[in-house]
Amino acid sequence: MLLGRVVGTLVATRKEPSMSGLKFLVLKQIDIEGKETGGYRVAADAVGAGLGEVVLYATGSAARQTKMTYQRPCDGVIMAIVDLLEVDGDVTYDKSEVG
Amino acid sequence: MLLGRVVGTLVATRKEPSMSGLKFLVLKQIDIEGKETGGYRVAADAVGAGLGEVVLYATGSAARQTKMTYQRPCDGVIMAIVDLLEVDGDVTYDKSEVG
Amino acid sequence: MLLGRVVGTLVATRKEPSMSGLKFLVLKQIDIEGKETGGYRVAADAVGAGLGEVVLYATGSAARQTKMTYQRPCDGVIMAIVDLLEVDGDVTYDKSEVG
Amino acid sequence: MLLGRVVGTLVATRKEPSMSGLKFLVLKQIDIEGKETGGYRVAADAVGAGLGEVVLYATGSAARQTKMTYQRPCDGVIMAIVDLLEVDGDVTYDKSEVG
Amino acid sequence: MLLGRVVGTLVATRKEPSMSGLKFLVLKQIDIEGKETGGYRVAADAVGAGLGEVVLYATGSAARQTKMTYQRPCDGVIMAIVDLLEVDGDVTYDKSEVG
Repeated sequence: MLLGRVVGTLVATRKEPSMSGLKFLVLKQIDIEGKETGGYRVAADAVGAGLGEVVLYATGSAARQTKMTYQRPCDGVIMAIVDLLEVDGDVTYDKSEVG
Repeated sequence: MLLGRVVGTLVATRKEPSMSGLKFLVLKQIDIEGKETGGYRVAADAVGAGLGEVVLYATGSAARQTKMTYQRPCDGVIMAIVDLLEVDGDVTYDKSEVG
Repeated sequence: MLLGRVVGTLVATRKEPSMSGLKFLVLKQIDIEGKETGGYRVAADAVGAGLGEVVLYATGSAARQTKMTYQRPCDGVIMAIVDLLEVDGDVTYDKSEVG
Repeated sequence: MLLGRVVGTLVATRKEPSMSGLKFLVLKQIDIEGKETGGYRVAADAVGAGLGEVVLYATGSAARQTKMTYQRPCDGVIMAIVDLLEVDGDVTYDKSEVG
Repeated sequence: MLLGRVVGTLVATRKEPSMSGLKFLVLKQIDIEGKETGGYRVAADAVGAGLGEVVLYATGSAARQTKMTYQRPCDGVIMAIVDLLEVDGDVTYDKSEVG
């Protein structure tokens, strides 16, 4: 899994019928220090993530292993909201201090 | 999922029989500001996308999770046409203003 | 799917038994202007592609969705021979003019 | 599979229900000389890996082929702890000499 | 599929039980001229490859389509030992001349 920060939303009315009801969020990819790495990903939201939150997302077939995305043409899903990230003994992200 | 702009078409008469009837579109990959990133992808069209439209496409096994692409050797599918993209509070793409 | 030009062949006598009978072709990856991008791929040939031809290939699990590659340890398959590629209103590849 | 060094942990209380009980470890990717390559991965731990250990991890659908990760939206799993790595006749990593 | 040269071995005693008995080989990735490209991969060996040999390996779910790797958390498998590689009319690798 990789880390992303939720920075936006995507609206699409014309889409594969099976994608109805899914919420698409725009993620900027970040590294384990919380820095943006330049990439992005549009992912379905399976956990009710909000703007600004740091999330964990899964890609590939793993992205269909949630109730919301099962058997849908979806290759990216947010499956966890990060509370705390600790790297080399330092806390590099603490949700309670940010929000 | 990633974003692309439909820029062309691909015609192939000699192909895997199961690919008959699929429409192949050529996408230039774009970022969340709408800028081209230099890459491309040929994708099957599951939603009737048109030239110039910004679309969302899925890759990998997700690309076979549509009626049109089910069990076919297809690793990229357009599964939504983007209406609106909002990033960091700004609208970075609005289909109604473009077309 | 991505585009490649068939530039060679690979012979392997010692291999997974299920790979017997498959023809391996060497592809140079090309972009939508027909320029080589520096990468390559070895792919199983499901359509009888010939040297010099521009082809469309699929990777990942999609590469096993042909009769020839079904349930085999194959992650790349040529599933179409390109006749015509049209990008931004220009024909960037026309098989009838090349060969 | 690729190599990583376990450098941290990730805590997420709000997540896909099926991810409960999984331990997420943060890996820095390393090459076969043991040098960091700049990338990272968050992976589920299927083998009880500890901080500082060099591990082998699998991505994609392979990451769901363990008891802990079966049918979960997980795209990265640590499936082995490396004891010894030998490259071009030299031992480039020996766990017994490190720890 | 991509090409690699077998350069080493990896020993791991603590691992997913289903990985027992699999031999892990270290591959340096090479291009179609036989030059190293800087990357590596650890792959399960399904064909009895030896040090120094040029092999073809498959990644992703294809890596589980051998008897040795079926339903195991393995995302890379050596499925063929290359005898001959011919690119643009030139033999760029001939096993009989090397070994």
